Amino acid sequence: MELVYLTILLALLQYAFMAALVGRARGKYGVHAPATTGHPDFERVNRVHLNTLENLVLFIPGVLIFAVYVNAAWAAGLGFLFVVARAVYAVGYLKAADKRGVGAGLTGLVNMVLLLGALIGLVLTVV
Amino acid sequence: MELVYLTILLALLQYAFMAALVGRARGKYGVHAPATTGHPDFERVNRVHLNTLENLVLFIPGVLIFAVYVNAAWAAGLGFLFVVARAVYAVGYLKAADKRGVGAGLTGLVNMVLLLGALIGLVLTVV
Amino acid sequence: MELVYLTILLALLQYAFMAALVGRARGKYGVHAPATTGHPDFERVNRVHLNTLENLVLFIPGVLIFAVYVNAAWAAGLGFLFVVARAVYAVGYLKAADKRGVGAGLTGLVNMVLLLGALIGLVLTVV
Repeated sequence: MELVYLTILLALLQYAFMAALVGRARGKYGVHAPATTGHPDFERVNRVHLNTLENLVLFIPGVLIFAVYVNAAWAAGLGFLFVVARAVYAVGYLKAADKRGVGAGLTGLVNMVLLLGALIGLVLTVV
Repeated sequence: MELVYLTILLALLQYAFMAALVGRARGKYGVHAPATTGHPDFERVNRVHLNTLENLVLFIPGVLIFAVYVNAAWAAGLGFLFVVARAVYAVGYLKAADKRGVGAGLTGLVNMVLLLGALIGLVLTVV
Repeated sequence: MELVYLTILLALLQYAFMAALVGRARGKYGVHAPATTGHPDFERVNRVHLNTLENLVLFIPGVLIFAVYVNAAWAAGLGFLFVVARAVYAVGYLKAADKRGVGAGLTGLVNMVLLLGALIGLVLTVV
């Protein structure tokens, strides 16, 4: 399980780094708190952070239940793929909004494999 | 505990479905990323998704600690009720903003029973 | 571990209280759902809630992995500090946007100690 926890920590540190980018972008684009809109370049940085939050809430329970009821090594591999997918998403989206598709799709694919795999593994264990 | 994990997975799959509705609504109402405002019908779909995120962060740790320190079967029952509450919330809110009250209230009730129950169960175990 | 779970529950109850403040502020400042902008006083209440959500997703897995791979008593202490940091953040930010710095900095410090400590503890256990 340690490798699974490691992927969770890496995903969280990556997400904390995105939060730091939002803070820097506030100054750079003059979007002062509490506003979260006002400059499209700021809004893309902000959406990278928030979309990652939205996906972490699927990823963390998903990867843990998958690890217990399917396979911990596969869970860790999918976990590393999640971190890669979020990096691809961030790099694309920070360039332009229409370059976020590949990373978003890969993130969604990893999360669906984890959640549906966990569901199947759980049901097969109980039945 | 398997039934508790099952309710968590169902709640997460329901939440992933709401995320897909947001993606579809972007096209339907012409709200292009990174914007999250601009059409009230889009904004209601988006708020269904985000309010569910806000509540999942209470639900998941709450139902797990409740299961361990109070009762796992009751935790699973409350977990299924959480999923029902979010469906009621979504169906109501997608019709009109003032039809979100019943689902929101039921969600809040389930989460408060889980969190306060978990707190009482935990304190009674330690004392 | 019970004290660690206790800090998680306290942080979640504090966060649920912030959600209730957002609901009250909707009526007080006339910001009707699904809008989340329109009055700067409402927006500060809303950002207190959402920034806490953003930080809970770092805190909860961080404090749990830190407790297992570093030290549970230190994890509980840092967990109580997280709750204090969020209270300082909320009280400051509800007064004025530029008074959120101390609470935000303390929150970030606690989360970084938890995440980096957990990472080091985990790696030292595996190696």
